[in-house]
Amino acid sequence: MKAKTPSESQTVMTEIVLPNDTNNLKNLFGGQLLSWMDRCAAIAAHRHCRRIVVTASVNNVSFNKAIPQGAIVTLEAKVSRAFSSSMEVFVDVYIEDQTISGKKSKANEAIYTFVAVDQLGNPINIPAITPETELEKDRYDGALRRRQLSLILSGKMEPSEATELKALFLDEEGQ
Amino acid sequence: MKAKTPSESQTVMTEIVLPNDTNNLKNLFGGQLLSWMDRCAAIAAHRHCRRIVVTASVNNVSFNKAIPQGAIVTLEAKVSRAFSSSMEVFVDVYIEDQTISGKKSKANEAIYTFVAVDQLGNPINIPAITPETELEKDRYDGALRRRQLSLILSGKMEPSEATELKALFLDEEGQ
Amino acid sequence: MKAKTPSESQTVMTEIVLPNDTNNLKNLFGGQLLSWMDRCAAIAAHRHCRRIVVTASVNNVSFNKAIPQGAIVTLEAKVSRAFSSSMEVFVDVYIEDQTISGKKSKANEAIYTFVAVDQLGNPINIPAITPETELEKDRYDGALRRRQLSLILSGKMEPSEATELKALFLDEEGQ
Amino acid sequence: MKAKTPSESQTVMTEIVLPNDTNNLKNLFGGQLLSWMDRCAAIAAHRHCRRIVVTASVNNVSFNKAIPQGAIVTLEAKVSRAFSSSMEVFVDVYIEDQTISGKKSKANEAIYTFVAVDQLGNPINIPAITPETELEKDRYDGALRRRQLSLILSGKMEPSEATELKALFLDEEGQ
Amino acid sequence: MKAKTPSESQTVMTEIVLPNDTNNLKNLFGGQLLSWMDRCAAIAAHRHCRRIVVTASVNNVSFNKAIPQGAIVTLEAKVSRAFSSSMEVFVDVYIEDQTISGKKSKANEAIYTFVAVDQLGNPINIPAITPETELEKDRYDGALRRRQLSLILSGKMEPSEATELKALFLDEEGQ
Amino acid sequence: MKAKTPSESQTVMTEIVLPNDTNNLKNLFGGQLLSWMDRCAAIAAHRHCRRIVVTASVNNVSFNKAIPQGAIVTLEAKVSRAFSSSMEVFVDVYIEDQTISGKKSKANEAIYTFVAVDQLGNPINIPAITPETELEKDRYDGALRRRQLSLILSGKMEPSEATELKALFLDEEGQ
Repeated sequence: MKAKTPSESQTVMTEIVLPNDTNNLKNLFGGQLLSWMDRCAAIAAHRHCRRIVVTASVNNVSFNKAIPQGAIVTLEAKVSRAFSSSMEVFVDVYIEDQTISGKKSKANEAIYTFVAVDQLGNPINIPAITPETELEKDRYDGALRRRQLSLILSGKMEPSEATELKALFLDEEGQ
Repeated sequence: MKAKTPSESQTVMTEIVLPNDTNNLKNLFGGQLLSWMDRCAAIAAHRHCRRIVVTASVNNVSFNKAIPQGAIVTLEAKVSRAFSSSMEVFVDVYIEDQTISGKKSKANEAIYTFVAVDQLGNPINIPAITPETELEKDRYDGALRRRQLSLILSGKMEPSEATELKALFLDEEGQ
Repeated sequence: MKAKTPSESQTVMTEIVLPNDTNNLKNLFGGQLLSWMDRCAAIAAHRHCRRIVVTASVNNVSFNKAIPQGAIVTLEAKVSRAFSSSMEVFVDVYIEDQTISGKKSKANEAIYTFVAVDQLGNPINIPAITPETELEKDRYDGALRRRQLSLILSGKMEPSEATELKALFLDEEGQ
Repeated sequence: MKAKTPSESQTVMTEIVLPNDTNNLKNLFGGQLLSWMDRCAAIAAHRHCRRIVVTASVNNVSFNKAIPQGAIVTLEAKVSRAFSSSMEVFVDVYIEDQTISGKKSKANEAIYTFVAVDQLGNPINIPAITPETELEKDRYDGALRRRQLSLILSGKMEPSEATELKALFLDEEGQ
Repeated sequence: MKAKTPSESQTVMTEIVLPNDTNNLKNLFGGQLLSWMDRCAAIAAHRHCRRIVVTASVNNVSFNKAIPQGAIVTLEAKVSRAFSSSMEVFVDVYIEDQTISGKKSKANEAIYTFVAVDQLGNPINIPAITPETELEKDRYDGALRRRQLSLILSGKMEPSEATELKALFLDEEGQ
Repeated sequence: MKAKTPSESQTVMTEIVLPNDTNNLKNLFGGQLLSWMDRCAAIAAHRHCRRIVVTASVNNVSFNKAIPQGAIVTLEAKVSRAFSSSMEVFVDVYIEDQTISGKKSKANEAIYTFVAVDQLGNPINIPAITPETELEKDRYDGALRRRQLSLILSGKMEPSEATELKALFLDEEGQ
């Protein structure tokens, strides 16, 4: 299978925050944003492999910025790295200033993992990723570390095997 | 403020998986489940502090089990630990066997963090948690470790300061 | 078929009243509550018999209390009595005070009847109910009277045959 | 206030049964129909009095006919009788044969009661009803009997005071 | 196939404008109204031919009047003319004054074209239309002109062949 | 006010066709697509002027291609021309082949007109458009002709004044 670039899977979604999407402060529910990000990331994963994809996991996501009712929310997703049958997908979320400037600012970022499956739900092989830009290369490199962390947290890997991740803590020890 | 028990915040939601909630394999979208879990966890957080709560973060969530269209999904959320103005909430997700036995099995588990805010969106103090059962005590203890991991991943803490978490890797080194 | 207790079918649903669920006074539409109660009762009926269930009728329901936008609504349903293939289900609806006390109060109560059917839609036999608590026994006893009333109102029974119900009026005559 | 006729409040709604409205037999959920009937009846009540109306109660409703996915459902509501601030509204539900004939048949009928309120939610006076057709007259006459039954069932009237209703049972005694 | 009258296909829909249907001025989104009009027109088209119908085109639609949140919107659709397998459908949209008068006024009007198809999506023949009222006759006559315009705009007809339409411009030339 | 380019208003939306969006052939409802196109076009119009925008009209839209359930639909909108307070917006709709190729093809195209308004709903001035690409220039030029047609059809202009449009028919006369 021929490798693909992240930009071949790029997916853009634009949403308006409606009253039913908001809490008592009239800001977007975190859960609604999680659902939009999953949908956007799933389409990017599908575009990478052109097969049915199912959400395998969501990484630690932080909600730093309140997004008000009426805001225009833009989501951009790209596959950052592909393993044998799973893909890591980055979703960047932007909002636009509601003044005349319309300045776009980053509201959020999330990392989802998807698995490509056949009609019976069995995992299948997918193309590799060849990162192009600096950001794509950084995210490609980090994907392995995040995968180890995820395997440890779900009890599928011993911390001692997580060589990439362990370095993070040992470095701090001055070794 | 008087401490509260996790069971005082317990929240149960029951949902049926409808056609619009499913992908091409007729299984529940991950994003829809994330949205339900957020809503359930937010109500538990609200019940703990009786103030407006906003989603601060979602921990690593794995989707291990496909949940088919028509399934009855039960979500149970409880606050596991409270910090000054933030709360960690566990959500356990169960589905029922569609045969005559109706056997309930665990499908999923997620950890959300919420912050209690006043009408202007500023953080406010909330009651502490006093865990009662063994499971509640385990989750209470783990909350500190997860908080450190989350602070490191978002760049708000140096790995060297994360004493709870570092032990996890150093123990494996036999030190 | 072994009889079951009402608590084996207990179903809890928690909902937040969103803007689209409300009228011009920003209170919950009666019809939205009827729909939630039906869904909650249907799951309880399903849990009693583990078969497909269809709504057969709804009893006289009163809406005594306005439920405001943003309120947390808890629905609790239990099968109160089973006949050959039909079940009577009670749904109790609670709301929580939006002050710091969060005091729970009863907003509503409704009685639905469901029929268990096979894949072709034909009625099938279901387990009997063995009530346990005082409230469950009261509701079990009342179910027969309500069934007669329902049969009379739908023209399927003559008032003279409704022995349970007739007593209600004759007692008042001092007989 | 000038009395009005039932036809002045007539309200017609047409709905298509979509996948999300159906159960595992691909028939319309009872709760969805209850919600549509409430919305249709509320508009009829509003048209009678041109004020905010809130659902006060729903009468015994039977679901005799399964309504399949894709069916076209027509709801017709009219105020049948007005009391000082409350209105009884009949909703007739029809479906159309999915063959070339398109024959319309009655699927259902329900009776809702609404109260007209001011901006503070306090009941206000409304116009009386002058029935015109035979069916309208029948429904107008029956409204009083149903009102007594409803008051007895909610504990607001003693059975001995329900003269209209008692006659129903005593007649059967041959007195 | 026996011709039918426009009134045999008449379809009425009543909707309430909910918060999620509105923009920042709390007026109905144009797109929501377009969607309601399509659904109403599709049912009218289906009632004319009792077959599956698919939207073929929408004519120039103007939105002259803002429709506020909470408004009651009534849509009335009727087939205005039938060609071999396609139908033109008029949709008239009314709103009611929110004062005590409840005066109905026209908000909008749109013209949709539908094609009747078999289970494979192939066009099939449908009954002709026999207009009855003056308005129905006017709309019937105009349908041919609109059809030519539509064919020209989609490049399927040369302007020189559009005899009906050309007259419109040539008349203005004083010829 | 400084003129802007069409690409400054470019808006991309990606949608998946869900079961509730489809008719009995499991193809997307025309009305659902019209609603998505309106939302996408409205955001593009808003991005051009950064003010509240309301739909003024929709041009003749043809639905040439059935879009099946599960399809990924991409909508791209750009302002094609701005008049004093109104904007013409083109929406291009693409679907992707569901085979491994994922080949993108055009499904549809629509032209909407929006008006920019202040908080009271009064029209306000907006920046002009400077087209850049060949396609943008073509669409810019055609906008005037479409505006005349729209004014004639809504009775706001005499055919004799529509110089741009009349040429279309007269040319065919060989004059």
